[in-house]
Amino acid sequence: MTPTVNRQIVLASRPPAMPTADNFRLEERPMPEPGPGEVLVRNIYMSVDPYMRSRMRDRKSYAPPWKLDEPCDGRAVGRIVRSNHPTLAAGDYVSSMLGWREFFVSSGQGLSRLDLSVAPLPAYLGVLGIPGFTGWYGLTEIGRPKAGETLVVSGAAGATGSLVGQMGKILGCRVVGTAGTEDKCAHLTRDLGFDAAINYRTAGDLYEALRRACPDGVDVYFENVGGAVLDAVLRCLNPFARIPLCGMISQYNQDPPEPGPRYLFQMVGNRVRMQGFIISDHYDRYPDFLREAGAWLKAGRLKHQETIVEGLENAPRAFLGLFKGENLGKMLVKLGPEDG
Amino acid sequence: MTPTVNRQIVLASRPPAMPTADNFRLEERPMPEPGPGEVLVRNIYMSVDPYMRSRMRDRKSYAPPWKLDEPCDGRAVGRIVRSNHPTLAAGDYVSSMLGWREFFVSSGQGLSRLDLSVAPLPAYLGVLGIPGFTGWYGLTEIGRPKAGETLVVSGAAGATGSLVGQMGKILGCRVVGTAGTEDKCAHLTRDLGFDAAINYRTAGDLYEALRRACPDGVDVYFENVGGAVLDAVLRCLNPFARIPLCGMISQYNQDPPEPGPRYLFQMVGNRVRMQGFIISDHYDRYPDFLREAGAWLKAGRLKHQETIVEGLENAPRAFLGLFKGENLGKMLVKLGPEDG
Repeated sequence: MTPTVNRQIVLASRPPAMPTADNFRLEERPMPEPGPGEVLVRNIYMSVDPYMRSRMRDRKSYAPPWKLDEPCDGRAVGRIVRSNHPTLAAGDYVSSMLGWREFFVSSGQGLSRLDLSVAPLPAYLGVLGIPGFTGWYGLTEIGRPKAGETLVVSGAAGATGSLVGQMGKILGCRVVGTAGTEDKCAHLTRDLGFDAAINYRTAGDLYEALRRACPDGVDVYFENVGGAVLDAVLRCLNPFARIPLCGMISQYNQDPPEPGPRYLFQMVGNRVRMQGFIISDHYDRYPDFLREAGAWLKAGRLKHQETIVEGLENAPRAFLGLFKGENLGKMLVKLGPEDG
Repeated sequence: MTPTVNRQIVLASRPPAMPTADNFRLEERPMPEPGPGEVLVRNIYMSVDPYMRSRMRDRKSYAPPWKLDEPCDGRAVGRIVRSNHPTLAAGDYVSSMLGWREFFVSSGQGLSRLDLSVAPLPAYLGVLGIPGFTGWYGLTEIGRPKAGETLVVSGAAGATGSLVGQMGKILGCRVVGTAGTEDKCAHLTRDLGFDAAINYRTAGDLYEALRRACPDGVDVYFENVGGAVLDAVLRCLNPFARIPLCGMISQYNQDPPEPGPRYLFQMVGNRVRMQGFIISDHYDRYPDFLREAGAWLKAGRLKHQETIVEGLENAPRAFLGLFKGENLGKMLVKLGPEDG
C-alpha cells in the first residue's frame, strides 16, 4: 500500500560557512499520481556528497544551486511502484537524480534500470556509481599511473578515495592513503590492501610522515581534501607527477578560504600537472568504466563499504557528517526497504 | 689583441634567502689556450635569469647546482677569436652555456652558430632565445589560447612575459598583463599592444582590478610570479582554463615559502589545468619556434626590449635586479664590444 503522504527535504536557508541541520526542513506533500506514460518511484537509498555543499550557495557553478524552499536533489536508487510507462515496469529498480524525497513521478527520462544480479542496490550509488566512476576517470585519465609508481590518495577512506586506492593497487602502484582516524587507517591497510596509511590528525609533521611512507617520492596524488595534506604532498612529488583534483573538502566551508599551499612552486621545476575535473563532463566514458570496474568487482578485487543512515529525516545529519569524516566508504541514507 | 687575463664570476657562498652581491666573487685566471680542434670564444652578452636562483641552492633540481668557488654558468653569446676547429671560424658568432666569464675554450660541442642577418645578437638571448622559446612553448602547447579568449600574463614586462603577451595578441586574444611600475604598465599598453595592464603594487584589490580588466573572465593565465597575482586570477578563471606555470619569482627567495593561494579549490569546479614545464625538456621544438617567431619578428609583429648592464663585474647586480623588477624585457650583461 502506497502511503498518502510524500515526505521531502527542502533547502530552508543558505549557510555562510559550515552548514547545519537548520539549513534543511522536512516537509509533507500529497502523494503524486503518475499520469499517462509515467511511473511512480519509491526511493530506497539516496546519496549525500561533498559537492552538494556548492549547491547550497546561490552562485553559478557546474551544478545549479538548490532553490530555497524547494526540494534538494541528488542521486538516488529506488523501485517503481506503479507504471503507466511502455517499457518500465512496476518492480523495476532504477537510479535517478531525484533524491531527498521518498516518492516521485517521472516520465522515465533520466531513469536508468539497474541489474541487481551484477551488484547490490547500494553499489549503484558507490562503487558502480558516480564515486567509483569519478575515481576511475580521474585516476586513469588524469593520474595515468604506471606500474611501480607511488600513488597517494587523500580522503582515502571515503567513497571515492577507497576505490581509487584499490584501483591503484590493481594497476601495480605503491598506494598510500590519508584519513582522519586510526580505525580508517587500519581499514585501508588491513581490508583494502593499501601499502601504508597516514592519520593526518595525529601524524604530526605530515611531510615527514609522507616521506617515510613514500621513499621513492610521489608520482600521482589523487586530491580529495586540499589544505595541509596537499601542501605536504607538493614537497614529495617526483618530476612529471600528476594531480587529479577531484575535490577539496577541507575548503568547502571556509569563507574566505584559508591560505593555500606554500609549496605550489614545486610544480614548476617538477613539471607537475594539476587538473580539476567534473565527472558529468565525461558520461560518455561510463560504459568503459562499468565494463572495467564491473569485472574487478566480480573478481573480488574491488571492495566497497557503505555507511548507511536510516530515514529521510536523518539525511541532513548524514550530509553534515561528511564534513566531520563520519563515513567509512560511501555515505548513504536508506529511505525504505529494498523489496516491497 | 687578446688580453692575457680572463675574468670570471664564481659562486662564493649560498644565500639562505634573498641573494646578495657577497654570494659572488670576481676572479682572474690566465687566458686559456685553444688546443687542437678547439676554439677560443670571447663572450659579448650573457644572460641572467630568475631560474638561476635555484642553481645557488645545494639541492637537486632540474638544473644542477652551481658549485662553490667554481665559475657560474648560463646562456651567453660571443664571437670566436681563434679557431683550430674544422668548421667554426674566427669571426663566427656563437651561443653557448658558458656565461659568467669573458673568454672560454670549447671543442665546439654545445656551440650554435648565429645568423646576425636574421636578428641582432642580443635577440638570441631573448626573443629568439630561451625566454621567447619558453613563452611560445608554454603559451601554445599548455595554454592553447583560442582567438577571442582572454589571456592574463604576470611578470608581463619581463623577458618572457612581454613576448607571451604579444604572441597572445597575434593569436587573437584579449591580453592583460601585470607588472610592478607605472612605466612598465604604460609600456605594455602603449608599445606592446596589451589591452590592459595592472600595476600589482598599487592596484589595491587585485581581484577587483582583474575583474574589471577581464570582463569575460580568464581563459589562460601564463604564470611567472606566483603569490597574490595567482590568487586573484584563480577567482576569475573560466571553466576549462589553462595555467602554464613558467615560474613563480615571488617565491624564490622565501624560506620557508609564504602561504599559497586561498582559491586553489576553484580549479576543481572550473576543471582548470595547471602545468609546470621546463623548456629544456622540449628542445626538439626549437626549430618550430624559430620558424614561427622568426616570421613574426621579421614582420615587425614581435617587439623586444633589453635592459643591458655593462661589465662582467656588474653581472651579480644585474642578476639581483631581476628580483626587484629592475629589468624591462630581457636582462643582459654586456661583456665586450659586438665587433672586434
